[in-house]
Order: sequence, then C-alpha cells, then structure tokens
Amino acid sequence: MRITLIGSGNVATHLGAALKNAGHQIVQVYSRNADSAALLAYHLKGEAISSWADINPDTDLFVISIKDDAIEEVASSLAAHQMPIVHTSGATSLATLQKYTTKAGVFYPLQTFSKSKEVNFKTVPMCIEASNEDLENLLKQLASTISNSVYTVSSEQRKILHLAAVFACNFPNYLYHASQQLLAQHQLDFNLLRPLILETADKVQQHLPAAVQTGPAVRNDQKTMTAHLTLLNGNEEQTTIYNLLSQAIIKMGEGQPTVK
Amino acid sequence: MRITLIGSGNVATHLGAALKNAGHQIVQVYSRNADSAALLAYHLKGEAISSWADINPDTDLFVISIKDDAIEEVASSLAAHQMPIVHTSGATSLATLQKYTTKAGVFYPLQTFSKSKEVNFKTVPMCIEASNEDLENLLKQLASTISNSVYTVSSEQRKILHLAAVFACNFPNYLYHASQQLLAQHQLDFNLLRPLILETADKVQQHLPAAVQTGPAVRNDQKTMTAHLTLLNGNEEQTTIYNLLSQAIIKMGEGQPTVK
Repeated sequence: MRITLIGSGNVATHLGAALKNAGHQIVQVYSRNADSAALLAYHLKGEAISSWADINPDTDLFVISIKDDAIEEVASSLAAHQMPIVHTSGATSLATLQKYTTKAGVFYPLQTFSKSKEVNFKTVPMCIEASNEDLENLLKQLASTISNSVYTVSSEQRKILHLAAVFACNFPNYLYHASQQLLAQHQLDFNLLRPLILETADKVQQHLPAAVQTGPAVRNDQKTMTAHLTLLNGNEEQTTIYNLLSQAIIKMGEGQPTVK
Repeated sequence: MRITLIGSGNVATHLGAALKNAGHQIVQVYSRNADSAALLAYHLKGEAISSWADINPDTDLFVISIKDDAIEEVASSLAAHQMPIVHTSGATSLATLQKYTTKAGVFYPLQTFSKSKEVNFKTVPMCIEASNEDLENLLKQLASTISNSVYTVSSEQRKILHLAAVFACNFPNYLYHASQQLLAQHQLDFNLLRPLILETADKVQQHLPAAVQTGPAVRNDQKTMTAHLTLLNGNEEQTTIYNLLSQAIIKMGEGQPTVK
C-alpha cells in the first residue's frame, strides 16, 4: 500500500518502520517541524513535508499519529482528498474522524514506544476500528502484514484499554522508580532488582496475575508488613502507597485462589 | 560441595536444582512433609528425611529454605553438627543464626519463584552475607557456580532490598491484576495487554524508570486523567489508586527530566 504518515513522534517512527519493512511504500512524512519530518522521511525513504499545501493526494491511506488534541484539525484538512484517514490514538474515538469523512478508521498499536528502543512489531496488538466493513477489512489486512496480533476493538473498548494500560504500564513503571529510589538511598545497585522486574512481567505472560501474586500482603503477613512500614519511616508518600496497595492485595487474596 | 537442603518450597526447589545442575551433591532434603521431601529429593538425587534424628552430619553446608518464622528453631537444632548454616530469607537477619553458630551465613536469591515456571538462575542476583570472611568467600564461590551476579549485602541492606522488591514485584503484579479485571469487565482479552507489560519491564533493564515514564500523569494531561476517572466511576479502590499514583508521577515528572 501507499501510505502517508502524519507525525514524527514515537508511534509514527516505530509504526512507519514496521510498515516500510513489511513492503509498504511511505509516500510522504508530514511534521510541522521540518527537521523531524526530514529525519523520519529519510529513514522511511519517503518525501518530507511540513506544509499541508504539499500533500500528495496520490496515496491509499492517511495515518495520523500526532497528539490527541491536534487530530481533529488535521483530519478536517485531509478530508478534501477523499482517501481513508486513520488515527493511532488509544484515547480518541472514531467519531472524531467521522465528522469529516465516511472513510474513517483507527489503527492503534497497544504498546509503549521509546525512540531509543527497538520494538518487535510482530507481537504488538493492533486494535482496528472502521466506519465501514470494507475499510475494516483493509485495515485488518494491513495490520496483519506488521503484527501477528490483530483485534477489532470498538471506541468504547479502546478507551478501557487505554485506561487499563495506565494500570499495566505507567503505574508499574512508577513503582519501579520508587524501588530504585529506595535502593539508591541505601547505596544499592538497581541491577539487583532488574531480573525480578523482568521475571514478574514474564510470569503473567502465561498466568493470570491473581494466580501468581506473591509477597507479604497476599499471605496477610502482618509482621513483615509492619517491619516494612518501619523501614519506610519518614516517607509519607511511599507509606501511603504501601498501605493502599497492600490492603488491595489482602482483599484480592481473600477473594481468589492464589499461589502463595 | 556436599549440601543439605532444609525445606521443599519454591526457593528450595529452584535453588536445589541450580546447585545440583552446577555439580554439587545434595546429600539430604528435609521437609516436615515426607511426601514433599521425597518428591524434591527424587529430583535432586538426594536422601529424603522428615525427622531431625535422621540428619546426616557428613555435609559441608546446611541451607535453610523455609518460612521465616521457623528458621530460628531449625538453626538451633542443626547447630550441634558444627557445620556452616545459611538461610535464604530476604527478611531475616544474620543475627538470627549467629545466636546458635559462629558459622552463619545468608544465601539469598533475589527473585520470585513459582513451582510452575523455570528460572534461569544465571541471571538471579545472589545476596551473600556471613559471620566470618572465610565463610563469606566460600559462599561467594558457591554462588558464582550458579549465578553470574553475586553481591555482598548486609542484613540492613537486605531488608531494604526485600522492601524494594515489594514495590518492584508484588505491587506491579497487583496492578496487572487490576488492569486484567478492567478488561474482563468489558469482554476484552488480557492478551491485549501482555506485550505492553513485558515491554514496560524490558525498558528498565537498560534505562532508569524515571527516564522512560510515559502516560498522562507524567505529561500532566488533566483532560485524559479526568476521562479515565470517569471511566472508573463506581470503583472506589481503583479510583483511589489512580489518583494516588498519578499524583506521585506528576511530582516525579516535575522533579526530574523524563522522556515523554
């Protein structure tokens, strides 16, 4: 397919590379910032543009991969070309595009992307939605060229996924940070915890989290929890987090069978 | 080395296998439960015992790998044999053993173990402590036969590690559970989030967590956070967790440079 990429951020960069590697042609890369457009277009062997007047209408698909707030305005200016328009946002509804085009879709890769780290796109779940069945099928086919994991997901479901991703990714990463801070305060190397972090995430690849919960809270081991709170003495924020999450785990432990 | 294993739980099982695979001889496996002792002893090609009277004193090392509460009593009954005694507990001080022997040590593998899942012991950080330098060197040498990652860690530091592991492992696993519950309530497959969970843990293998924090909180994106809270409407516990961790991330984002 001939694809036009709007945006040059983390998602645009990784998605663009996956599409190009799957044999698709990246016609143009648009970014307000001409340098960013030029850099990504260079990698994707497409044309860099930073003005809407330079859009080449000879494309099969516009992929909008920019900040949520700017999606609507971009869609309104692309609609005149009458080609399908998709966005890649977890938190934006399909209806935002449908105001401007009857060929609207969502092409949402459910993963966390950093420019500094390669991602194996084959394992990235692609969440597809479209305003008609033909476009849905086209997008599913396109998604299957870059990923082994393609789902049809409604706008309502996608909002839940986006929220759940905060619990599954953003909050755990903050807790990694809290653990790293604790270690640093006691001259301990964060490398001591890195294998544990990876194994914890690896365990739930096969199991449900409730079935592999470990630690003092799920055993309701009050002695250890009291000792931990003593060690946190003076750190109000970490104490509040410790108490809240421990209480939640105790409740979970009482409600469900778990491996202790 | 000739090693006697006291216990047959997750740590004893994985540690025993790693020691045997490294060429050490497991002389005996003790468990109060004769069936558990027999099963593990069978795998480790040692003798199963479930009575202290059957302890074979012809061993180089007693490894106590049982519930924290029971360590002291077991140490007191093993001390008469005058061989080195170590425990494998994160939360128990060296002093607990030193009451009974001058050859006391700690041999703590910092990892989460489940019987149903193999662990590559080479990557497991081994935290060593001993009551004298000779024993410390012996334990470090023993640890290096099963792991590439051996650290000398004091009892005070080990307590911090044990606490930090709750933040790095037990709490994130609970948050995986919360995300899985959200998905289940909306007929969504947990497989949608599994790659994200793994990638989030993989990212901090090279980077510090604060440098790779993503999501609405670190951007202080109030619009998205308000939308998320609306979606959580009615779930008091998840709302409290969402607010508390988001506030902590906002503070972290203000204090430190992060990749957004």
